[in-house]
Amino acid sequence: MSFLYKADPVRGAEWARLFATKAPGISFHIWPDIGQADRVRYLAAWVPPPDIARQFPKLELFFSTGAGIDQFDLAALPPELPVVRMAEPGVVAGMVEYATMAVLALHRDLPAYIRQQREGLWAAHRVYPASKRRVSVLGLGVLGCAVLGQLRTIGFQLAGWSRTRRQLDGVACYAGQEELPAMLAATDILVCLLPLTDSTRGFLDAKLFSMLPQGAGLVHVGRGPHLVERDFLDALASGQIGDAVLDVTDPEPLPPTHAFWRHPRIEITPHIASMTQPLSAAEALLENLRRFEAGEPMVGRVDRDKGY
Amino acid sequence: MSFLYKADPVRGAEWARLFATKAPGISFHIWPDIGQADRVRYLAAWVPPPDIARQFPKLELFFSTGAGIDQFDLAALPPELPVVRMAEPGVVAGMVEYATMAVLALHRDLPAYIRQQREGLWAAHRVYPASKRRVSVLGLGVLGCAVLGQLRTIGFQLAGWSRTRRQLDGVACYAGQEELPAMLAATDILVCLLPLTDSTRGFLDAKLFSMLPQGAGLVHVGRGPHLVERDFLDALASGQIGDAVLDVTDPEPLPPTHAFWRHPRIEITPHIASMTQPLSAAEALLENLRRFEAGEPMVGRVDRDKGY
Repeated sequence: MSFLYKADPVRGAEWARLFATKAPGISFHIWPDIGQADRVRYLAAWVPPPDIARQFPKLELFFSTGAGIDQFDLAALPPELPVVRMAEPGVVAGMVEYATMAVLALHRDLPAYIRQQREGLWAAHRVYPASKRRVSVLGLGVLGCAVLGQLRTIGFQLAGWSRTRRQLDGVACYAGQEELPAMLAATDILVCLLPLTDSTRGFLDAKLFSMLPQGAGLVHVGRGPHLVERDFLDALASGQIGDAVLDVTDPEPLPPTHAFWRHPRIEITPHIASMTQPLSAAEALLENLRRFEAGEPMVGRVDRDKGY
Repeated sequence: MSFLYKADPVRGAEWARLFATKAPGISFHIWPDIGQADRVRYLAAWVPPPDIARQFPKLELFFSTGAGIDQFDLAALPPELPVVRMAEPGVVAGMVEYATMAVLALHRDLPAYIRQQREGLWAAHRVYPASKRRVSVLGLGVLGCAVLGQLRTIGFQLAGWSRTRRQLDGVACYAGQEELPAMLAATDILVCLLPLTDSTRGFLDAKLFSMLPQGAGLVHVGRGPHLVERDFLDALASGQIGDAVLDVTDPEPLPPTHAFWRHPRIEITPHIASMTQPLSAAEALLENLRRFEAGEPMVGRVDRDKGY
């Protein structure tokens, strides 16, 4: 029985050491060393190799090494193969830190102060209490819920939107396309934490922006293709969007000449909001393996119909 | 019996309305309209007028409208006059928000990403978990304690330093000059929230910087004169200080040509970390008035010996 790892090799070496201690019965291979193909029972990859059903006939489980699975074509995997996303505490903690930082930065006018610094301009903007600032999160998965939990400790007015209805303490929850306009109309800072699927591609478009109050802030920590570039630049130009913090773009890396880099009201970070921590990721994966063997539900199991 | 207010008149008008409702027995005057000088029992000011003992013979209480009292000469006030700082929930909440934002920004390399954006450079820096990041706070008053409480929810390794020993859950507490080096040696991000007194002026100097690990971050939300400008620029130049977020400078406003504005590793905001909210400030003051009349201890009462 073997475990095949196909992603960053430095991280792979860290995982191999942890497996040797915690799961000595499993032989651990780092791509391109696949060992005996017909002994591969588990595969963890950022992007799976092609034709895995034929290549690894005994494959029982596929793990994405990322929190999302939009980096590969889910439909190309055998339909009965369980697919598990990486939902480890490091990913969640990183996203909570980043989203909290970005929301606070927009709440406290940091982008304006960064601009003023270039001009040597000392001028204060009015401070609003967090209790008067309406922060809404699109996407109420593990990450969205954790971000809302942290923002709640700061005292913001919180709302959240998901496809199917959720209930969260201290958060006004909205569900489905028909309730989206009501939430957006009452949003000062919008955080996008949607999964990327066919129905969320281009979600952040002119129509959505037009439903926000004039000058709303945007924190985009979903996936680059959620955002319609032309509509976004227009919304910034008209002042419909005030300031924006983007951690994801399309494409990534963003080319050096791209207009986003030089836009005075866009702050960009290079997809670093949430990065798996090698050790906690491997531990989360081993825990899922244990659950799988025991017939228990795995954390982060992908619903093949929903696509996330 | 009257209350004399001498600070921002817009805010004064908001206070006047609140007093009319909540303390209709007190006649409220906004400087320079002092009413009958010998009826002034309470004075609230950012900077008190000169010679207040002679000018207001019935004065019983002096309120600073700021969280600190270093903007005026405490020794010039009559020695027996009780002096009360503004310790209202709005000031505390604002500082917690700002310090949390600044610490997260240093923790997650935001200054480096801001620099990279100017060059169109997409390059990720390693993310460390908050549990491996050592954040230390100088000054454990109401603000320092509240900031540590919020940082704790994010999972940082926390330490705090004060003149006299404090005990705080989840915070390694250090006290007195002799314990300062041990804390500094174990600090990745240092937050200055000291009061400004004769013994803390110039506290952030070359000697202190040299006790930090190379590349430590600084969040300065105390007072401008805590920081020795020349030593600070040297520490940045040598890499002893990595990045710094300054909300206070000396002088304020910082002149447009000052070197801090253009330094690539300094982020400046114009003393906006913590601003009193007119209504919660007036409510906190009225509560202190009630305590004073009832002979109860007031919140924020200044110890004239310590100077804060």
